Amino acid sequence: MSKGAEIERSGSTARMSKIVRHGDLIFLCGQTSSGSDAQDIAAQTDEVLRRIDDLLAQAGSDRSRLLSVTIHLRSMADFAAMNVCWERWLAGGPVPARTTVQAELASPALLVEMTVIAAA
Amino acid sequence: MSKGAEIERSGSTARMSKIVRHGDLIFLCGQTSSGSDAQDIAAQTDEVLRRIDDLLAQAGSDRSRLLSVTIHLRSMADFAAMNVCWERWLAGGPVPARTTVQAELASPALLVEMTVIAAA
Amino acid sequence: MSKGAEIERSGSTARMSKIVRHGDLIFLCGQTSSGSDAQDIAAQTDEVLRRIDDLLAQAGSDRSRLLSVTIHLRSMADFAAMNVCWERWLAGGPVPARTTVQAELASPALLVEMTVIAAA
Repeated sequence: MSKGAEIERSGSTARMSKIVRHGDLIFLCGQTSSGSDAQDIAAQTDEVLRRIDDLLAQAGSDRSRLLSVTIHLRSMADFAAMNVCWERWLAGGPVPARTTVQAELASPALLVEMTVIAAA
Repeated sequence: MSKGAEIERSGSTARMSKIVRHGDLIFLCGQTSSGSDAQDIAAQTDEVLRRIDDLLAQAGSDRSRLLSVTIHLRSMADFAAMNVCWERWLAGGPVPARTTVQAELASPALLVEMTVIAAA
Repeated sequence: MSKGAEIERSGSTARMSKIVRHGDLIFLCGQTSSGSDAQDIAAQTDEVLRRIDDLLAQAGSDRSRLLSVTIHLRSMADFAAMNVCWERWLAGGPVPARTTVQAELASPALLVEMTVIAAA
């Protein structure tokens, strides 16, 4: 069976890569804030979105080329506040497909995690 | 870095696009029913599946070209009833990869949400 | 609209396919252990990883070509123990993007489910 496009990874640890690029698809690992207890949902969402910007830039892409984003919220009570940050971030540009559900994340301090598939 | 295929979006709001097509991949935003309290899991699942049919048709695809579907159920107690609708919908045709987990959705009235990746 | 690459499926039931290949992308259905109550998180994780190896081999790929893995854990208390198995499995090779969240799975005996996107 013929092999497909090469795979490029960056930000790799023993556990995961922050960026995996395959052909013209980019997969980011789930992005959270640094998890300080002092951050509310707006601060965490803004930090997550900055991290996504940084990683997409490293991969040669940007927020206008998002394809699909899965958002896990620790509490759906934060849905409206997260959306304010999200819509401000995307204002005036193209927007991806999106799914948002509630889930406990890796540590109790984390309120939001975003998993991104983007185009190169 | 060379840019990949163009991205086509439709059904876009400030928050998300219902359909994002990139090359021959189609990403749909998470599909739920309209969320009437009067709908049970079967009615909600059937409505979600009709919405997926409609969106795939708009994107030039159909249910025979589903690649991967992630299903979030508000309660795993609805697993069997959801599967009856799901299998009836796919009867006689090819079936996608699938993952089903339990999660609270954006509003309490919503019992099921499906996130689709399909081929054009 | 022109149709894209052909879709190959294997391990298909009325409900889902274990493997869906489209072009050089491979989607696996959510992988769990056989669900024996006697298995702890380490045993379940190891079994899931063996199943992923088997399915990727059937699809002409292997664990070095993982792109993105979504891990659902029944309890985040199992995060560390799951990661020990995960990192041992990937030791010395390339690692995918990854997202891990907590969710109830299809049956109470199941502690971990992994959803894989890989390159052919």
